[in-house]
Amino acid sequence: MNRKDFIKKSTAAGIGLSVVNPSFNLLRGSDDRVVRLGFIGVGGRGRGHLRGMLARDDVMINAICDISEVNAIQAQKMVHDAGKGKADLYTKGDNDYLDMVSRDDLDGVLISTPWEFHVEQSIAAMKSGKYVAVEIPAAITVQGCWDLVNVSEATGMPCMVLGNTSYQRDVLAVLNMVRQGLFGEMIHVQCGYQHNLLPVMIDENGNFGPGTPGEAAWRTNHYVHRNGLLYPDHGANSAGHFLDINRGNRYLKLSAMSTKARGLHNYIEERSDKDNSNRNVVFNQGDIVTAMLTTAHGETVLVIHDTTLPRGDNNKAFRV
Amino acid sequence: MNRKDFIKKSTAAGIGLSVVNPSFNLLRGSDDRVVRLGFIGVGGRGRGHLRGMLARDDVMINAICDISEVNAIQAQKMVHDAGKGKADLYTKGDNDYLDMVSRDDLDGVLISTPWEFHVEQSIAAMKSGKYVAVEIPAAITVQGCWDLVNVSEATGMPCMVLGNTSYQRDVLAVLNMVRQGLFGEMIHVQCGYQHNLLPVMIDENGNFGPGTPGEAAWRTNHYVHRNGLLYPDHGANSAGHFLDINRGNRYLKLSAMSTKARGLHNYIEERSDKDNSNRNVVFNQGDIVTAMLTTAHGETVLVIHDTTLPRGDNNKAFRV
Repeated sequence: MNRKDFIKKSTAAGIGLSVVNPSFNLLRGSDDRVVRLGFIGVGGRGRGHLRGMLARDDVMINAICDISEVNAIQAQKMVHDAGKGKADLYTKGDNDYLDMVSRDDLDGVLISTPWEFHVEQSIAAMKSGKYVAVEIPAAITVQGCWDLVNVSEATGMPCMVLGNTSYQRDVLAVLNMVRQGLFGEMIHVQCGYQHNLLPVMIDENGNFGPGTPGEAAWRTNHYVHRNGLLYPDHGANSAGHFLDINRGNRYLKLSAMSTKARGLHNYIEERSDKDNSNRNVVFNQGDIVTAMLTTAHGETVLVIHDTTLPRGDNNKAFRV
Repeated sequence: MNRKDFIKKSTAAGIGLSVVNPSFNLLRGSDDRVVRLGFIGVGGRGRGHLRGMLARDDVMINAICDISEVNAIQAQKMVHDAGKGKADLYTKGDNDYLDMVSRDDLDGVLISTPWEFHVEQSIAAMKSGKYVAVEIPAAITVQGCWDLVNVSEATGMPCMVLGNTSYQRDVLAVLNMVRQGLFGEMIHVQCGYQHNLLPVMIDENGNFGPGTPGEAAWRTNHYVHRNGLLYPDHGANSAGHFLDINRGNRYLKLSAMSTKARGLHNYIEERSDKDNSNRNVVFNQGDIVTAMLTTAHGETVLVIHDTTLPRGDNNKAFRV
């Protein structure tokens, strides 16, 4: 197969469709129906999704939920400015999303909240008969994964995990090349979530936690209490597609190791006052976590989580 | 530190000396003594070492051992052509090296035989009071490693493992940068032995084993019967230097996984007759073996063995 053939076939085959759950045709746009969405979580990430949805003629945004009224009003203004009317707001604390998902004028709910809320919010939405699209990681415990599967099967409602890197054009091109055999038999995949998130997780004064901006408000806390492959989806999702995981193949074994934790502590020290108590926080999450997996078909996969070490672009935040 | 300073300091510090066992001053050349060497194994690798030694004024080659008389005579001619007289030959089978190492006109023995002979030959040489330089892997069992250590300590004779990549100028430059703190605190090292050895291990007709040329005669057999990190030294030796392993730090845990084995079988099929029985050989060694290690100082090390998969340079052998 030469380059021209490959591009022609890629285009003709409509790459990417094959990896999307075929029952999730909410946004197919093949008829005149309009999809009515509610958003839970409209911080930086949620508003990014909102922008994407507002660009479509076949989508309405009827409701927006966020514990931050500032975020919610900002999102509401985006909807209004797009000529799509006035979305109702749900901003009364952690459980107000329950009122939103029970509305009968929503087809689907898009969830972009901190990781620890994904399972309960997805489950509530599915139980209310709503299609769910939930940010990654969809769950942070094995039980949470099973809860999502069980509720989806019991309610018949799909729960789409927004592993967006899997659907990038370059990654889908590689998937297409894999499926057309350009690499031969698959043997080994290496992937990871590897960039400097320090400026996202620590503010300019060395602070994090409630009251600090963006993901510093909640994400950094995971690095205090946990140690593992916190964000495996980028990378591992695509590796799974390449290897037909859950499409005839499956993972068999996993082994993971972690380094010591230095990056967050050093970064805080570099920009905080001497009496800042964050200097004494002991971070549990190692700077680099490496996991190896084997599959039933005999491949191995290497997955790396590496987000708290300085790099050449040390002072630039990676914005997702 | 800027680039100019770094280069100046690197040169001034005589980088590299610090990683060589200080007791192994056999080739220091700081006085007028001549070092008298014997070689065991003068295939491609051994003759490479011989060329290096023949370039020195302070080295004599008094004896050469190889089970192949052709190899031995070729090496003897190299010594003669270098104006260094006539080396005695030992070519009478697997145990003729014992007669060679018991000579009293040898200071050291350089061993470049198939892996499985390294331990017994090194031990015999040390027990005869000879300095030993032995190719990697110096041992292929844990017991073999201890045997080398124990005999070296009992006899007082050093056994230098020829992990040559550790002494390359580029690798020593990195070691110097590590020690001068240019990377900050060490967190994680990735390394490996990663290149296509298929043309070294299988001849043009899809054959290997006794009678085939070079390493195909013996190396490929390890891939039939074993499965592991067959050749960790390139890479892992340097990682150990970077992390002060056995200089205040040590490895704590190791986990390794292997892929299926496809490369050797496919390579044989592509170039052998249909009735070539090598097509039916089941190779145990996976194409890619990945190992993770943790250290007492909290770093992790990733070591990869990847030698039997085609690459862009598929038809070119990597010659060491």
